[in-house]
Amino acid sequence: MATTSAATAFALVQSELQTLEQILGEAARPSDPVMGQLLGLVLPGGGKRLRPLLALLWGRSHNHRRERLIPFAAALELLHTATLVHDDIVDEATVRRGEPTLSARVRNSIAVLVGDYLFAQAAAQAVSTDHVGVMRSFTATSMDIITGQIDESMSDGVLTLTQEQYLRRIGGKTAALFALSARGGAMLSDAPERVVFAAEQYGYKLGLAFQIVDDILDVVGDARDLGKPVGSDMRQGVATLPALLVRDQVPTSLFQAAYSGGGKQEESIRLLLETIRSRGGVEGSYAEADRLKADAYACLEVLPHGPVRDALLDLGEFVVQRVK
Amino acid sequence: MATTSAATAFALVQSELQTLEQILGEAARPSDPVMGQLLGLVLPGGGKRLRPLLALLWGRSHNHRRERLIPFAAALELLHTATLVHDDIVDEATVRRGEPTLSARVRNSIAVLVGDYLFAQAAAQAVSTDHVGVMRSFTATSMDIITGQIDESMSDGVLTLTQEQYLRRIGGKTAALFALSARGGAMLSDAPERVVFAAEQYGYKLGLAFQIVDDILDVVGDARDLGKPVGSDMRQGVATLPALLVRDQVPTSLFQAAYSGGGKQEESIRLLLETIRSRGGVEGSYAEADRLKADAYACLEVLPHGPVRDALLDLGEFVVQRVK
Repeated sequence: MATTSAATAFALVQSELQTLEQILGEAARPSDPVMGQLLGLVLPGGGKRLRPLLALLWGRSHNHRRERLIPFAAALELLHTATLVHDDIVDEATVRRGEPTLSARVRNSIAVLVGDYLFAQAAAQAVSTDHVGVMRSFTATSMDIITGQIDESMSDGVLTLTQEQYLRRIGGKTAALFALSARGGAMLSDAPERVVFAAEQYGYKLGLAFQIVDDILDVVGDARDLGKPVGSDMRQGVATLPALLVRDQVPTSLFQAAYSGGGKQEESIRLLLETIRSRGGVEGSYAEADRLKADAYACLEVLPHGPVRDALLDLGEFVVQRVK
Repeated sequence: MATTSAATAFALVQSELQTLEQILGEAARPSDPVMGQLLGLVLPGGGKRLRPLLALLWGRSHNHRRERLIPFAAALELLHTATLVHDDIVDEATVRRGEPTLSARVRNSIAVLVGDYLFAQAAAQAVSTDHVGVMRSFTATSMDIITGQIDESMSDGVLTLTQEQYLRRIGGKTAALFALSARGGAMLSDAPERVVFAAEQYGYKLGLAFQIVDDILDVVGDARDLGKPVGSDMRQGVATLPALLVRDQVPTSLFQAAYSGGGKQEESIRLLLETIRSRGGVEGSYAEADRLKADAYACLEVLPHGPVRDALLDLGEFVVQRVK
């Protein structure tokens, strides 16, 4: 299957995305020089800006209020970056997107404060939307995301985690922010409640699909493309859908050895990854992602046919596209 | 000099403070049980609620809008608690207020997330004031505080730090939040701009005085009253005013040894603390705190004589009172 670039989606909001980059660039240059240096290590990022994209597209579902959408898009990307910085501390990750993580470059304690600063910047941008309802959604979602991270990092049930629990976990960790992005965009365009609700559902389902594909990539991806070694989730003790789907087909001892560290962990990870690939863990996960994408598409019925709806369909394809 | 309890100040806003405790109690019981357990370790706190007190008192300077003031007071206390939780990670502190710190009880990574959650809760309460100007001040001050923490933790210039730099540092670390508390209270009472400005100045000056007294306590205090060992600032490499005032009178080697760790650190700390006490470092610092208190009092001229002004005077005495 050919890969898609979501070109339609990006093209529609190209000018807003450029303004967003300017704002993120300014955010990386605060008056304090020490803070500026540190932010310069994380903010350029080179991420895909998927969350801003969602907000900007749903922000065209009714009235297009550019001046409110841009700060909201910035708030989403800053919040996302803040959670990545703190996540890398929690996970003791040393590499992200092919670059050393901030917590690998500077003391952990400094990375804590840089993440805090990004959170505060995100909140400041959310306030700049001047829309109290959106601010409320923003802070509530922030709490959901952090709760999801705590739950992930406190539980160690790779042997007992159910698919339902897995979905709830990636819901908090990833889909909640996708849902906020779409919902907030719709709210800022003064869309009626049923559209706001559909936007939230679309974002949530797409976020789940996105995280599943991300989890698949950790099984089948190329370390160079991923920007981090394959099997990272196992090394961090985080069970994902591809593994859950084959758990019943492998010896418990192998499963445990792959997730719990110890001398034979690397060998066990290699073996378990191979098993996941050969026993349908990858295909089954893609099927689930496709189901979720279809659920997301169904939410688009509230929108008239036209460029915005087309772009959101395009974005869905982009998010769940298969690795060649 | 007899100690004062700020009884007038507390009495005036007693009912609001009770409601605040209820809200903080609810904040410690989110729907997620794991998060609830963790918050229960830090939120009861037993702090003096000085920042809420400032907000509630200045919130009576014009129109008394209780429904806006209470969430703002909660936001301040939650933000303060969040910074304490992350500060203890940065400082590797194991004891605060006589209790083990959160980062001493649970993994650092969990403490990072609990602090994040508190930040998000604080922002949510700030949004509940429904006052966009106050929200703006809230996020801007959050950034100032974090920048101050970074500057403190990145610089190691105990031998070169000037008094001016010290004041700027404690300005970011402590006085900025006092200033926000007073300013926000005045804003929420719809006070005219000159009163809002005076409130901010009062809070800032009082915050500086408060931090200086706190720094004095680390030199002369009783470990039991302090809830942490005397000389903690030196152990953490943080130069404070009492030490700066005697720096020219002690050998550089002693100063360095007290701040930079190594085998003779404890002995050097004992010796340096004694020198500070005998060479006027404590008296000189109290004199500076008194000057700042007088500056704060001058700001109260904008208020009519009456219970609010009396309470703010009372609070000033409370903050800079001497240790017996």
